[in-house]
Amino acid sequence: MAIILSINSGSSSVKVSIYKSAAQGHPPTQLADASISGLTAPPAQLTYERGSEEIKNQEVKGIRSNEDACEYILDHLVKDGGLSEIASRDDITHACHRVVHGGDYPAAHVIDEDTYHHLQDLTDLAPLHNASALAIVEACMKALPKAKNIAYFDSSFHSTMPKEIETYPIDPEIAKKNKLRKYGFHGISYAFITRSVAEFLKKPESETSIIALHLGSGASACAVKNGQSLDNSMGLTPLAGLPGATRSGDVDPSLIFHFTHDAGKPSPGSTKELHISTAEEILNKKSGWKALAGTTDFGTISSSSDPRCKLAFDILVDRILGFIGSYYVKLEGKVDALVFAGGIGEKAALLRKRILEKCRCLGFEVDDEKNDKAIEDVVQDIGKEARHRTLVCQTDEQFEMARQCAVGLQTK
Amino acid sequence: MAIILSINSGSSSVKVSIYKSAAQGHPPTQLADASISGLTAPPAQLTYERGSEEIKNQEVKGIRSNEDACEYILDHLVKDGGLSEIASRDDITHACHRVVHGGDYPAAHVIDEDTYHHLQDLTDLAPLHNASALAIVEACMKALPKAKNIAYFDSSFHSTMPKEIETYPIDPEIAKKNKLRKYGFHGISYAFITRSVAEFLKKPESETSIIALHLGSGASACAVKNGQSLDNSMGLTPLAGLPGATRSGDVDPSLIFHFTHDAGKPSPGSTKELHISTAEEILNKKSGWKALAGTTDFGTISSSSDPRCKLAFDILVDRILGFIGSYYVKLEGKVDALVFAGGIGEKAALLRKRILEKCRCLGFEVDDEKNDKAIEDVVQDIGKEARHRTLVCQTDEQFEMARQCAVGLQTK
Repeated sequence: MAIILSINSGSSSVKVSIYKSAAQGHPPTQLADASISGLTAPPAQLTYERGSEEIKNQEVKGIRSNEDACEYILDHLVKDGGLSEIASRDDITHACHRVVHGGDYPAAHVIDEDTYHHLQDLTDLAPLHNASALAIVEACMKALPKAKNIAYFDSSFHSTMPKEIETYPIDPEIAKKNKLRKYGFHGISYAFITRSVAEFLKKPESETSIIALHLGSGASACAVKNGQSLDNSMGLTPLAGLPGATRSGDVDPSLIFHFTHDAGKPSPGSTKELHISTAEEILNKKSGWKALAGTTDFGTISSSSDPRCKLAFDILVDRILGFIGSYYVKLEGKVDALVFAGGIGEKAALLRKRILEKCRCLGFEVDDEKNDKAIEDVVQDIGKEARHRTLVCQTDEQFEMARQCAVGLQTK
Repeated sequence: MAIILSINSGSSSVKVSIYKSAAQGHPPTQLADASISGLTAPPAQLTYERGSEEIKNQEVKGIRSNEDACEYILDHLVKDGGLSEIASRDDITHACHRVVHGGDYPAAHVIDEDTYHHLQDLTDLAPLHNASALAIVEACMKALPKAKNIAYFDSSFHSTMPKEIETYPIDPEIAKKNKLRKYGFHGISYAFITRSVAEFLKKPESETSIIALHLGSGASACAVKNGQSLDNSMGLTPLAGLPGATRSGDVDPSLIFHFTHDAGKPSPGSTKELHISTAEEILNKKSGWKALAGTTDFGTISSSSDPRCKLAFDILVDRILGFIGSYYVKLEGKVDALVFAGGIGEKAALLRKRILEKCRCLGFEVDDEKNDKAIEDVVQDIGKEARHRTLVCQTDEQFEMARQCAVGLQTK
């Protein structure tokens, strides 16, 4: 039996899901779920679920970093008598780490000394995104010496993008030297979505083509052609494409130089190891709905009558429509389904409705009654009988990592 | 009778078309065409056409600036005995100037002291684009004291874009203060295209909706809904959107900070008056096909078997397809025609074919025989009987300025 931790370390929280898997590569079964949030606004808070047992937002003192949070959760798992599968840390066989930027890695990778240094190099490309994951990887390599640590990259799923899509129209020599190309992100989620939608449609994954939208505080769109990523709205970094909670998404590449004269200077968040320009800080952290509407909560934006919220909502609709149309043509209309996913994709029925009304010209049609229902299945139909299907998918990146890990058990 | 000059002053050339118009607002008739090129690679060369008279690439000495070129052309017009309409400079009644960035001006504007200063302020937003036009405006105000100088802006046609399309997801206060929004460009051309296509389709302009592509060394796409601009691929500046001869088009907004550490520093091309960042210089002048394929000549790119040319070609196809799909959805499929224009749009039959093959899913269908014919009409059909029309339009920005000027004669 394998005990698999799926770890998602973000800028202000650490989430860990715990699974067991029979060694034959069966899909993993979830045992428990733990998270510590509020790392940037102490006191941190623990949330823990195992079966019917639940701890919700319990204040925990002395947690100052992602590493502290990880240590606390590991202790909690060992101490929880009801979690008989983990009597000591040594019972944990695998730790799966979500790492945003995987550079040229086309698949997940077991982390050893060499890989770890390579991942550190990649941090330069995505300092805002990789740093917190790497801190946890290092902590886990020490805290769980018997476990296999594996990095799952948000970019790997997109390694199938063709050259003309991943190449930027810039100096090719500098692009090569500095590793500048479109990578695409949210790939762990798109792998989950593609597989789940194929199962739902009873088609082989290799014959399933979809336009998928992962809409959360970070948002992206993806064109999947015959089970493989053809295009993704994110780029060299997750900044490109759709706007998010604090992210601008695509803007005129010269805009930031008219926004501030300090664009190229290091941001106050920079350290000796992490070079973050003021521009990247502004466009990643101080833009998006937060800047437009004063809130990062899309529920508020979508229900408020404040004209600033309405504008933020309309901007998101407009940009999403753009990518749906773009990907429809790139897939030459061979699209099995348009799929909404991510927190906002699952919950924002009004957003889905507004988008789908405009997509009738492509052959997508919303069923208002189905669209207004709560999403309870992994994949749920919200469309009318039409040229193409319209679906919602409850994506689960933690599960996807554990699943890929469990499948790997079989083949290694 | 009005004698109208249409002046298009670029970074290395000045083009002047000369028209006469009956005062009743009839469409103008072209009398002659003059241009001086090679301003950045002396000796400059004059090309002049009047009826069957033609001077081609005649070297002219001592021309060092756009103002010099303008002066030389004015002299040439007066001295040309065959051009009886211009016996002295005072016979010129109107000078129409193409100005790229018009900020909030929703229409052409007669230039007086006040307007001129306002235009100077706008140069900050588009130093690479407005500076050469402004130099000529100033020269003409002195050289032609009796003429009315009128600025025609590439951005004006897009003043109808809705808020959710023109707004960037960034801090609204700074956006307002620094005038940061999508403006869109190539608008003089899109005005010509929209009117000409409406005439061709025998529909009122106000009921004509098209997806138009102005493809030249600068390239853009435009969604026109009921005769008005709904969206344009260019943004705050002409940099955003499609790649061009030396322009990157859209890239991850953080890319340039990974391209060079000097992104925010003034470029060597900056002067005390013109603030151009190194980033803007690189992305506007040292990217695009020139960077990818080593040439700015799209004819070479489209006929070469060099893999670098093939990649540049495929990238342009991919990005254009994206905008066609995007605008198709934003227009909710209510599209009278997809229209190719600009030097490349007119000449590159292979590019059109490659694009149109992928757009069959939207109801556009190329007729190979018609597509391979030379484009001789102002608007020429290249499509098969299909859900939507496919057209090529020989756009003419000089004529469009003179036409608007001539129409204005009637109403003022």
